Amino acid sequence: MIQNNLIYEGERLDELQRNGYGIIQNPARFCFGMDAVLLSGFAKAKAGEKVLDLGTGTGIIPILMEAKTDAADFTALEIQEESADMARRSVAYNHLEDKIKVVTGDIRDASNIFGASSFHVITTNPPYMIGTHGENSPSTAKAIARHEVLCTLNDILRESAKMLMPGGRFYMVHRPFRLAEIMSKMVEYKIEPKRMRLVYPYIDKEPNMVLIEGLRGGKSRVTVEKPLIVYKEQGVYTDEIYDIYGY
Amino acid sequence: MIQNNLIYEGERLDELQRNGYGIIQNPARFCFGMDAVLLSGFAKAKAGEKVLDLGTGTGIIPILMEAKTDAADFTALEIQEESADMARRSVAYNHLEDKIKVVTGDIRDASNIFGASSFHVITTNPPYMIGTHGENSPSTAKAIARHEVLCTLNDILRESAKMLMPGGRFYMVHRPFRLAEIMSKMVEYKIEPKRMRLVYPYIDKEPNMVLIEGLRGGKSRVTVEKPLIVYKEQGVYTDEIYDIYGY
Repeated sequence: MIQNNLIYEGERLDELQRNGYGIIQNPARFCFGMDAVLLSGFAKAKAGEKVLDLGTGTGIIPILMEAKTDAADFTALEIQEESADMARRSVAYNHLEDKIKVVTGDIRDASNIFGASSFHVITTNPPYMIGTHGENSPSTAKAIARHEVLCTLNDILRESAKMLMPGGRFYMVHRPFRLAEIMSKMVEYKIEPKRMRLVYPYIDKEPNMVLIEGLRGGKSRVTVEKPLIVYKEQGVYTDEIYDIYGY
Repeated sequence: MIQNNLIYEGERLDELQRNGYGIIQNPARFCFGMDAVLLSGFAKAKAGEKVLDLGTGTGIIPILMEAKTDAADFTALEIQEESADMARRSVAYNHLEDKIKVVTGDIRDASNIFGASSFHVITTNPPYMIGTHGENSPSTAKAIARHEVLCTLNDILRESAKMLMPGGRFYMVHRPFRLAEIMSKMVEYKIEPKRMRLVYPYIDKEPNMVLIEGLRGGKSRVTVEKPLIVYKEQGVYTDEIYDIYGY
């Protein structure tokens, strides 16, 4: 492979089952999970739209969405320079430098970086956990990806409300235990929840993820979609999950 | 049956599969649906608690909950005198006059009628539809039960917040399309959503009901429960539905 110089020690290259794309990851830092893949399947971007991913990590969401949509271009914001650098190398590996721009910066300052009403679509797979609850090493890459150490749900919605064009769409994956706060704050920031899907690991278990679409300036009415069930039986995905993964 | 004088012309007596209880209904007015039965299964009332049902209609929710719980007593508020009278006759039929009190009155004025911090538990199966949308006869009993003609979600939450004791619980069944508004307003009125369950007619269909529990003064954290599936196949309920109905 000619791009092998893009992959550093301790990193690995994973295939994405889309357009022959690959992604560089470092298991000692953070590897993307099913949540990012499901969000990339739930989010919609139309031809010509400008898309921003907040807290992109490895860049998984814009890379998958570039393969799946006809969006004009993707901007990927990441606060950790090492993650941003890895995402840039994945973009280079996939020859997507003209389509995906990785920016190192702080979500809390995003509307100053990019300006108001600058995107049609915002995607985000934010940290799920409040504060540093249960985390002994809050400064590690994993902790920053999982806990609201460097940005909160409120920061994300406040900045997204500024950066979305009127009628722009917001797509987030999160944990169901925060659903009341998510919906309440989305309404507060006028990113009206319009579509929601709960992800249940098994048909008879509590959901462990929620996918949500908001519409900047939309009216109050949300479509709750059919359940997304992950496993048919132990170790066997449902057809829908295989389809989203592209197997 | 000695209580046959309780049933008027045009009315019928339906068995409830609980304690031998029955309920008087008039098909020309409004008959209770699965939503009321599911709410009575979802709501919890502990020994000695005082329970209020807002917009009780036929009285179905307090009658079922009287059979299922050890609550001290139930108050059932209903604005339509004909419905309240029918509910009173069902209470009499079941010899529950000491346990269930039916009050004719307006939800919008409920905290004035009953006073602040007067209930441990409030239940409600309110009108689902906004305004009189799609309704040609907004003054009929059916329209009042289905549409927010005489009270809104906001009225219900405002009054419930006043009437619940601190730590008191609020149980509502509603339509999923209003979920963002429900959660946003519950948070606003400090009836924090703590437990939610979506009711899916079939496993591969959109949910058509949502059951929600709120805690007066609770912290922000909601448990989304496993799906409640109604039909296993056409015309055949799942075991859980049969269980809730008491067959």
